[in-house]
Amino acid sequence: MKTNHCKIVDCTIRDGGLVNNWEFSVEFVQNLYAALNDAGVDYMEIGYKNSPKLLKGADEAGPWRFLDDDFLRKVIPQKGSTKLSALVDIGRVDENDILPRSESMIDLIRVACYSKDVDKGLDLVNTFHKLGYETSINIMALSNVMENDLVEAFQMIKASPVDFVYVVDSYGSLDHNDIHFLVDKFQTHLPNKRLGVHTHNNMQLAFSNSLVAAEKGVELLDASVYGMGRGAGNCPTELLLTHLKNSKYQLRPVLSFIENYMLSVREKWEWGYLIPYLVTGTLDEHPRSAMALLASPERDRYAEFYDRMTTPEVNFNQKRS
Amino acid sequence: MKTNHCKIVDCTIRDGGLVNNWEFSVEFVQNLYAALNDAGVDYMEIGYKNSPKLLKGADEAGPWRFLDDDFLRKVIPQKGSTKLSALVDIGRVDENDILPRSESMIDLIRVACYSKDVDKGLDLVNTFHKLGYETSINIMALSNVMENDLVEAFQMIKASPVDFVYVVDSYGSLDHNDIHFLVDKFQTHLPNKRLGVHTHNNMQLAFSNSLVAAEKGVELLDASVYGMGRGAGNCPTELLLTHLKNSKYQLRPVLSFIENYMLSVREKWEWGYLIPYLVTGTLDEHPRSAMALLASPERDRYAEFYDRMTTPEVNFNQKRS
Repeated sequence: MKTNHCKIVDCTIRDGGLVNNWEFSVEFVQNLYAALNDAGVDYMEIGYKNSPKLLKGADEAGPWRFLDDDFLRKVIPQKGSTKLSALVDIGRVDENDILPRSESMIDLIRVACYSKDVDKGLDLVNTFHKLGYETSINIMALSNVMENDLVEAFQMIKASPVDFVYVVDSYGSLDHNDIHFLVDKFQTHLPNKRLGVHTHNNMQLAFSNSLVAAEKGVELLDASVYGMGRGAGNCPTELLLTHLKNSKYQLRPVLSFIENYMLSVREKWEWGYLIPYLVTGTLDEHPRSAMALLASPERDRYAEFYDRMTTPEVNFNQKRS
Repeated sequence: MKTNHCKIVDCTIRDGGLVNNWEFSVEFVQNLYAALNDAGVDYMEIGYKNSPKLLKGADEAGPWRFLDDDFLRKVIPQKGSTKLSALVDIGRVDENDILPRSESMIDLIRVACYSKDVDKGLDLVNTFHKLGYETSINIMALSNVMENDLVEAFQMIKASPVDFVYVVDSYGSLDHNDIHFLVDKFQTHLPNKRLGVHTHNNMQLAFSNSLVAAEKGVELLDASVYGMGRGAGNCPTELLLTHLKNSKYQLRPVLSFIENYMLSVREKWEWGYLIPYLVTGTLDEHPRSAMALLASPERDRYAEFYDRMTTPEVNFNQKRS
């Protein structure tokens, strides 16, 4: 097994922020950066580079949602070999906020979009590419995209300067056969692009799917420490660190970080394999209904939730009698 | 994907009993049987058929460790289509305790043994086979067996009447490549035997490994509800129920059981993906050191534990000066 071509992108702050509304202290982020750097992790996605002007409720979330280079320089005064990454959403980023890479702490900017918005996503990619950044485009909700739409998106991506294209299992609904199928498809249609994979753990398949993708030649593996991420969470960084063959990674610094910083976060906030996430995963649905259930007093009513999710919509058409 | 040849063996009571010292009420077991039967699960392993005479501390464990047919008939007065299974350990079973299958509630008796004890295991298998039971032999700690020992064991097994032979990932150290390798080996050496797989979840690979085994033709898939089992636990029954293709299984009855019975057990007892189990799994070690750590005041000292587990033994040879 040759997987030393892989690079780990730790998304703890960015995807984990979806769990705790980015309530990460500067100390937490600094210690995470140090641990990831010691462990040999290649990228740390330190947040979103969206603009607070373009997002409702922006004042409620901390600095990790609207990364600012002056701020980042204070957080990480001494950068190690771990690069920094930021995610942007279509329609939420102000291009004027982005410095040239030579003046920025950030190395990689990733654009998340749905298949239908790939053109808009690639506009952003072009801008970031011209500014000198490494770029990726992350097509979300792949399991719900029709073949013809995807092929059209591939044509645009193939002609773009984007460096990495992501296979994203937004709903945690994919198994290893799906990963084989999708990576084959991406490799066929995008022979000139490097690939990444972003998994969710609704069916306890995030790590396994990442390993399968790695073996097929996918380079960027998204993960987060202790799996912290929206809903069922992501592929745990620590599992990749210890299990990727022929790699330079060290497990110990991240174990130490989990012990000192993550356990208390996990006590306060919830993510991981919970039955409502299994239900949305297996049904190939967005986890929002599971998140709503878990925030309600009926959080443990699994059978009722399953019934609701599997019952055909009520027919609202009133038949005239 | 054709997996409808698979049968699920739910081990919640037997392997889960290793977590809570078999503190399962009769009501709990009855409701589990009803849920598994409604879900279409093929076998329920309802405990051990060891003899209390041959085991120290036997009086501390409930009836599920020393199954008795009169007792079982009271627990399950009306058997459904879910068959019952029991596990025995070498040297802990009294053959005189075993009724002929025609007079017993139990359908399948499984013999757990290490590779070096396969001869003794097969002696038991012969006895149970003559009494009319379905039989399996479960070779534990496969990852630590040398090839020559295994091939010798295969020769004896091939010539025996045993129905099923298990690939057992005792330490939760195997990934999908290992499963491919081992199932291929078993199929090559034991062309006349049906196979089973028993996984542990130390690296979140129990479900994925079970799926891979199923696709390769393995028939019996061990699992437990909510993954309840020793250490990191097993492949969750609910994941197999919902994800095995071309199957007759129903997820809902087991979701209902989890909601009503398992959540309170999980609050009281601990199993699943915990960092010490990741450490023993990735190091291909028995989980006992992780279990000891988790029962101690130092339970969260992951880095120290990792250091201890990865430091070469102290050299006790005293060099004469």
